[in-house]
Amino acid sequence: MKQVKVGILGATSYTGVELVKLLRKHSCASVAFVTSQSYEGKRMSEVFPEMLGICDATLTSPEKALAIGADCVFSCMPHAVSATTCLPFITAGTRMVDLSADFRIRDLASYTAWYKVEHPCPQYVRSAVFGLPEHYRTQIATASIVANPGCYPTSIMLPLLPLLKNPGTLVAAIIADSKSGVSGAGRSLKLTSHYVEVNENFSAYSIGRKHRHLAEIDQELSAAAGRDIKITFTPHLVPATRGILSTVYFQTNRTAQECLDIVKKAYAAEPFVRVRGPDDLPCLKGVVHSNYCDITFAGGGDGQPVIAVSAIDNLVKGASGQALQNMNIMFGLDEQDGLR
Amino acid sequence: MKQVKVGILGATSYTGVELVKLLRKHSCASVAFVTSQSYEGKRMSEVFPEMLGICDATLTSPEKALAIGADCVFSCMPHAVSATTCLPFITAGTRMVDLSADFRIRDLASYTAWYKVEHPCPQYVRSAVFGLPEHYRTQIATASIVANPGCYPTSIMLPLLPLLKNPGTLVAAIIADSKSGVSGAGRSLKLTSHYVEVNENFSAYSIGRKHRHLAEIDQELSAAAGRDIKITFTPHLVPATRGILSTVYFQTNRTAQECLDIVKKAYAAEPFVRVRGPDDLPCLKGVVHSNYCDITFAGGGDGQPVIAVSAIDNLVKGASGQALQNMNIMFGLDEQDGLR
Amino acid sequence: MKQVKVGILGATSYTGVELVKLLRKHSCASVAFVTSQSYEGKRMSEVFPEMLGICDATLTSPEKALAIGADCVFSCMPHAVSATTCLPFITAGTRMVDLSADFRIRDLASYTAWYKVEHPCPQYVRSAVFGLPEHYRTQIATASIVANPGCYPTSIMLPLLPLLKNPGTLVAAIIADSKSGVSGAGRSLKLTSHYVEVNENFSAYSIGRKHRHLAEIDQELSAAAGRDIKITFTPHLVPATRGILSTVYFQTNRTAQECLDIVKKAYAAEPFVRVRGPDDLPCLKGVVHSNYCDITFAGGGDGQPVIAVSAIDNLVKGASGQALQNMNIMFGLDEQDGLR
Amino acid sequence: MKQVKVGILGATSYTGVELVKLLRKHSCASVAFVTSQSYEGKRMSEVFPEMLGICDATLTSPEKALAIGADCVFSCMPHAVSATTCLPFITAGTRMVDLSADFRIRDLASYTAWYKVEHPCPQYVRSAVFGLPEHYRTQIATASIVANPGCYPTSIMLPLLPLLKNPGTLVAAIIADSKSGVSGAGRSLKLTSHYVEVNENFSAYSIGRKHRHLAEIDQELSAAAGRDIKITFTPHLVPATRGILSTVYFQTNRTAQECLDIVKKAYAAEPFVRVRGPDDLPCLKGVVHSNYCDITFAGGGDGQPVIAVSAIDNLVKGASGQALQNMNIMFGLDEQDGLR
Repeated sequence: MKQVKVGILGATSYTGVELVKLLRKHSCASVAFVTSQSYEGKRMSEVFPEMLGICDATLTSPEKALAIGADCVFSCMPHAVSATTCLPFITAGTRMVDLSADFRIRDLASYTAWYKVEHPCPQYVRSAVFGLPEHYRTQIATASIVANPGCYPTSIMLPLLPLLKNPGTLVAAIIADSKSGVSGAGRSLKLTSHYVEVNENFSAYSIGRKHRHLAEIDQELSAAAGRDIKITFTPHLVPATRGILSTVYFQTNRTAQECLDIVKKAYAAEPFVRVRGPDDLPCLKGVVHSNYCDITFAGGGDGQPVIAVSAIDNLVKGASGQALQNMNIMFGLDEQDGLR
Repeated sequence: MKQVKVGILGATSYTGVELVKLLRKHSCASVAFVTSQSYEGKRMSEVFPEMLGICDATLTSPEKALAIGADCVFSCMPHAVSATTCLPFITAGTRMVDLSADFRIRDLASYTAWYKVEHPCPQYVRSAVFGLPEHYRTQIATASIVANPGCYPTSIMLPLLPLLKNPGTLVAAIIADSKSGVSGAGRSLKLTSHYVEVNENFSAYSIGRKHRHLAEIDQELSAAAGRDIKITFTPHLVPATRGILSTVYFQTNRTAQECLDIVKKAYAAEPFVRVRGPDDLPCLKGVVHSNYCDITFAGGGDGQPVIAVSAIDNLVKGASGQALQNMNIMFGLDEQDGLR
Repeated sequence: MKQVKVGILGATSYTGVELVKLLRKHSCASVAFVTSQSYEGKRMSEVFPEMLGICDATLTSPEKALAIGADCVFSCMPHAVSATTCLPFITAGTRMVDLSADFRIRDLASYTAWYKVEHPCPQYVRSAVFGLPEHYRTQIATASIVANPGCYPTSIMLPLLPLLKNPGTLVAAIIADSKSGVSGAGRSLKLTSHYVEVNENFSAYSIGRKHRHLAEIDQELSAAAGRDIKITFTPHLVPATRGILSTVYFQTNRTAQECLDIVKKAYAAEPFVRVRGPDDLPCLKGVVHSNYCDITFAGGGDGQPVIAVSAIDNLVKGASGQALQNMNIMFGLDEQDGLR
Repeated sequence: MKQVKVGILGATSYTGVELVKLLRKHSCASVAFVTSQSYEGKRMSEVFPEMLGICDATLTSPEKALAIGADCVFSCMPHAVSATTCLPFITAGTRMVDLSADFRIRDLASYTAWYKVEHPCPQYVRSAVFGLPEHYRTQIATASIVANPGCYPTSIMLPLLPLLKNPGTLVAAIIADSKSGVSGAGRSLKLTSHYVEVNENFSAYSIGRKHRHLAEIDQELSAAAGRDIKITFTPHLVPATRGILSTVYFQTNRTAQECLDIVKKAYAAEPFVRVRGPDDLPCLKGVVHSNYCDITFAGGGDGQPVIAVSAIDNLVKGASGQALQNMNIMFGLDEQDGLR
């Protein structure tokens, strides 16, 4: 069987360690290196006690990792740092899945406007493929750089894209009210991730078109619709570790059932999208620790918006699981390998 | 000082015990009786261990309570049961605050449609006053029956009512995306309140104009606007004990700042509404265990909806605290007594 | 490859659904039937939304299951019900792993004293094997009935048994202070599992040699030591879904490091016991969703007790994972199949 | 009525803000200043959103606070920093309650051994009074410096001290297995207080006589018993915001009921100790947001240890509530003022 040698940059982030865990279950991928700025020289199992005996690999630097080499590199580093660190791998011809935002935004001015930094290697942006398998599978298969979508965007785009692409279906006034578990904020210490501040709390943030994920959401929805779309998006913090639930309101000429039928048909062959009945609402518990995106539609009628509800695990379908799905596609493997 | 003799029907519900706790801090109200169907004959402190030495009163039946009598009766019983049980107290001329929905809905057909039951004493519905002090203070002062608003409605109406009442302010396409802690579902056992099912979960329910609170929300918003309003409302369950946060989207001819100014002015003299700055978003932690409703406005511009965010403690401003505020108004007491 | 046809009785309990999930990852076991009293006729995925597309099998009755047949039956039913329901399978020669307490207690009088019921099929108790693979592997391999240990007992016995079996090591005055997540209390509705009662709470229960698990703990520790042992055991409820952490105090003639060495040596070849360093304390996060039991030793010296800390996932090594490990041993399969 | 002018040093710690909240309910104490190193110049309500309209005081420096002056200063600063910062207030004759460990340990060598620092003002240690009102009320009344006990020690000493002081009662082999909510770890950012690390986790720490609170526990228990006592103490972290539950095992010549009777008698007149029945076990939910310490006794017989279970709110009876109780005693006020 084909063997894929994998490297993980930024392996001590929550998405990094999730990727290591998923890769353990993969039938033909092996981890060649794991890197970390903060923990270089330590073992993965010293940083994450649950990894003892599972991944005791020593964390190395990106420089040393380059010498080791890999067939596929995953970057779990923050934006800008990611592209800069990956550049030598790209130059060396290594195929990569970037979990940061660096290669998601096609328009460099938009990237700079949202991320407040010049792109470190703009020459590679155009050739990068947006890694949403349900909509870019063919391009992902041959891509050198796959830009893994953001967690919120994945949960918002999956229910909407089939409708926006559907001729005769009008969609307008999109409002995405999203709720995320705290692991989405990462492992860096900050008061907004401090246990006592989050526990028994619930809050909105980046309200009013301030969240960076809007760049890719608008880009992809506009591309699908063939016209300029600017959604309303409010992220919220749920006192839970994992998961995103998005409640998406929109005006449409379709009933909720018609929306459901269109989306169900669009995803009929998809292994990781479950379109549920209108009385069988997606919830976090239904998807955490899996690569599923659960979707349904309700509401509508009498001038009311139709409401999509979607749920994913932010660390799996919203990050590392989708990254692995992308790798499987890139290397011609069973798309569900490591993700069942 | 004037003494108010208080009785609590359904005292072993979460709203009932919250009321008992609040009344302990009241300077001139004393609890004359507490009733319970399930725990009659037990002491409050046997049902709620935290009440030992605080409220050791023996739970009695509504029948025996009637003989004891009170200046003010609070009903924390479920709808229909509440009106039926309260009827003898009403007949006896006792003033009451009903925390159930029984006296909130002015239109009897609407009540029956939403609550699936004939009203037990329709003759008293018309004279009941909707107990939202910020908007019905004068009427509450002399009311015999005060219908304490629902928790979700309180969080949704408070930010919207001043705008709807404001001449020249247009408000349309209202969508309330609300998130509630689990105590809102009460103390009755059900799988949806079972720890393992709720913990690390987040879910929507009663989606698409199915939740009963729509009856009073539409009624009050329509009354304020002078036209028929039907909002979109999606309640969600937060894995936390207390609190409601509502994110309310609406189209308007005002900017977020103008909305904020209008609402701030409307509530300038209100002791329990805090209109916060647009960068100082309300959150559950800011209001739990208090009678405050925190409100702010953001978003808008460029065709985007303005977004109100409001937060309350569902058991305090959303139930027992507001009930006590109503009692204070009814009996000419300091409105903040017991609620500071 | 050998195929094992598996049946699950009581599949809608938390241990039942956990078993179904683990079996999905097994290379050669397939689920032939799932039974449920409460949900007969429904699909697993109607009861557990996360199972949609994963296990859509229809829940049947034990009677119908008997006609289907299986190589190995797992019982996830409550004690007494379990032995009664399993009897026809046993009679039919089906090998079984019983997750209830029915076949754990060798002394029938003790069983009746603790479980307040006559044993439904006492004739099978003697031949049943206590399913703690680390100490009964040989007997499990050929057993017809394997009595899967309780969750608390597994966490308490694993650190102690090698010491009690070690010649020259004295162990006395054992106190096990254990803390369990709420899934250990099962899926049946009760106030002590009601979200609002458990959340932000922490409590002891069955204090003072009142918990039924004492029967098997004393039995197994006494058997290992060759003398009568009665431990002190206090279970506590942690506001978390999964996991048990036991802090076990005992007087001994060994230092903590010597205890650690003895236990490390005893479990050197064990795939699912991780003996950690004394500064690398086991915690729930380190073991949940795995079949590991993490153990270390600290304290001692100057008359102080040595302290063992152990952690397991109550639903995996404490129940369904260990049951699957037992099945693997019984059928001569890779012991880690489905459990990696 | 006598007015007490109060100052709070380190007011943006969790104990500081809790003290501000408690003082709001006090009938005759007013806050003259609040200080903070990190937030000087900001308002309390900018740091803690819930304080808007409740405490909008501007945080100042200890130097400026000295000029303002107060009748009673509370220090919520870390050890060593506390004594150093308080020194000018002490010199100026201000009475103080120190919530840090600085004045708890009478033996300077022990202080230095446990806290790894020379005491900043050893000349004041001897005259300081250990602020456990139930055992030092008379001395507290006239003290200049009251050393407010630690949270764990309060929960462990209260059930044990009456037994140790009781002639004819033997107590030996004390093991305190304590469990604390996360607010006990303070507001400083650290990975062990990071939401994702704590949530759904449970862990032991400082195991084997390593926790600093042992210094004061051993000191006070030894003083009460008139002999040298060294207890075994294991702290654990509970995934909850507030509360400590201690399960304390000890050998004794008394039954559990006798222990209960002795302790009940000792605390008969105490407003903040509730000795509960042996079947009415203390739990966090019973005491959080109150100044109560709940206690009961169980176990014993047949060579088994007797088991005390005690529960407090770590931020109230374990810190700020007890500090306020001490102030009330120092200034001859109603001991329960602000704490009902």
